[in-house]
Amino acid sequence: MYCVGIDIGGMSIKAGVVDKRGNIVKKNTVTTDVAAGPKKIIDDIGKLILSIVDMNDRDFVGIGIGCPGAVNSAAGTVDCAYNLNWRNVALAEELSRIVNRPIKVGNDANVAALGESMYGAGRMYTDTVVLTLGTGVGGGVVLGGKLYDGNEGKGGELGHMVIQVDGEQCTCGRRGCLEAYCSATALMRDTRKAMTANPDSAMWKYSPTLEEVSGLTAFECCKQGDAAAKSVVDRYIKYLGEGMLNFANIFRPQAIILGGGVCGQGDYLIDKLKDYCIKREYGFAGMPRFDILIAQLGNDAGVVGAAGLIYELI
Amino acid sequence: MYCVGIDIGGMSIKAGVVDKRGNIVKKNTVTTDVAAGPKKIIDDIGKLILSIVDMNDRDFVGIGIGCPGAVNSAAGTVDCAYNLNWRNVALAEELSRIVNRPIKVGNDANVAALGESMYGAGRMYTDTVVLTLGTGVGGGVVLGGKLYDGNEGKGGELGHMVIQVDGEQCTCGRRGCLEAYCSATALMRDTRKAMTANPDSAMWKYSPTLEEVSGLTAFECCKQGDAAAKSVVDRYIKYLGEGMLNFANIFRPQAIILGGGVCGQGDYLIDKLKDYCIKREYGFAGMPRFDILIAQLGNDAGVVGAAGLIYELI
Repeated sequence: MYCVGIDIGGMSIKAGVVDKRGNIVKKNTVTTDVAAGPKKIIDDIGKLILSIVDMNDRDFVGIGIGCPGAVNSAAGTVDCAYNLNWRNVALAEELSRIVNRPIKVGNDANVAALGESMYGAGRMYTDTVVLTLGTGVGGGVVLGGKLYDGNEGKGGELGHMVIQVDGEQCTCGRRGCLEAYCSATALMRDTRKAMTANPDSAMWKYSPTLEEVSGLTAFECCKQGDAAAKSVVDRYIKYLGEGMLNFANIFRPQAIILGGGVCGQGDYLIDKLKDYCIKREYGFAGMPRFDILIAQLGNDAGVVGAAGLIYELI
Repeated sequence: MYCVGIDIGGMSIKAGVVDKRGNIVKKNTVTTDVAAGPKKIIDDIGKLILSIVDMNDRDFVGIGIGCPGAVNSAAGTVDCAYNLNWRNVALAEELSRIVNRPIKVGNDANVAALGESMYGAGRMYTDTVVLTLGTGVGGGVVLGGKLYDGNEGKGGELGHMVIQVDGEQCTCGRRGCLEAYCSATALMRDTRKAMTANPDSAMWKYSPTLEEVSGLTAFECCKQGDAAAKSVVDRYIKYLGEGMLNFANIFRPQAIILGGGVCGQGDYLIDKLKDYCIKREYGFAGMPRFDILIAQLGNDAGVVGAAGLIYELI
């Protein structure tokens, strides 16, 4: 038995034949022809699938798709995806005219979270929260081994939980979202602020100009003992820790899994977060603790998680 | 077919025979004998049940119980309930020795939320978030018509979501929780602060001393145009609105239901919250909106919701 997982991105569409243990046994990619519109892209997805599977093979049981934007996972439609320039696209229905298999669609961040939970760092757990710390903060929630994505599949917007009313401006329009403090973008903003305020900081050696600042600057200089860098890292840990504690109180997951570039810090990041959270966790001593883990699947999480949309039903 | 719902409180234990439409057709109450310990209380619950049902009646299909504290709803145990002085009580197992029926146990706030969702203001919806604005902020989440209470039933602690890092001290030990801004306790604290800072405020006429301040003081004086009272109400609405928007992004419920004393303000409160939220909701125009409603069941929500723990399984 196997499924096809599709990861639709603004630049390329990735497809993989995924076995039930989450291994990608065959894959192919096509450029996302955004300008040509949804019909052409759906045709391309159909061809991509046919390039890696035999439609006569009864072991091929279904197709899962991760798509950016507001996806109605119950209906299999994409209501709005800005970076594809899609509005009200009946993705599952249109694709089913090309490939005759069950098709499930989910939001790309939620689907990647499902992949990481089912087959990556979360595979030993049934209840996980995944946070991806990148340009923004994405994420997803898996409960009882199944993706939880809210009414019409439009929940699970974990990055847009306000943790500081009237705080930093977020891209979503509100102020003080987790994303506005814990994305790599926010980390770099805070690093630049600290460098500007501290002309003697060692961060100026690591990143000689503000343009050269990366998500590494503050963390690497903190390890060397630079005080300004430490204040940036401490603030980052504090906001991320508070966000994670919020999710612990709401979902009480067995594990919170962190992905994205910032997680290149590995145990250095995890140890600081554990230290922060363990002192502040809600409830009595017997309350179930959550583990904190680094994601393992990288860019494959999308394809594998898309297949997981089918496997979680079986 | 009927169930028995039990609502265990620190002062009294309420029991009701609840039909499948959520009507309490018979009820009884017993004082909570905290000093006598769990065995005596469980015996009392057994007697309470036998006083309102006939164990030979096959229409009597199960018993649901709402209990304060850290309840393991999967195991039917109460791990820790401070105001009952209980630790590791096998409630369902012990009670099943007295009454031979399926028994489900849940946290009291979550169970009351289930009752309000299944049979009260939320009965037309399948996905709801309930917030009770009282001494603290309690709540619960119902998804697909079923109570969602997290791993081991210890999630759904909606009042302990930090919305202001380093903000007001919360009873849970963290700072800046929703409860620390939106409980009646917090409203009264902020009212007293505003009165102290504004000796000419009309609030001094409504509540001549700080001891006389209630959850009504700021709201009633705001309606009369008092500026200091308006600033208290505006702040209250802002924090509650931000909290509700957070839950909308996480759960994308069809409705958020508000209960507790503050909701005596009715449409005055709801209209202000709608106005706040509609301007700030995340996502494009086609995103599903949430309705904002006032709870309808009052103190019966606990008993009815406890029965709902059985009915949601049928």
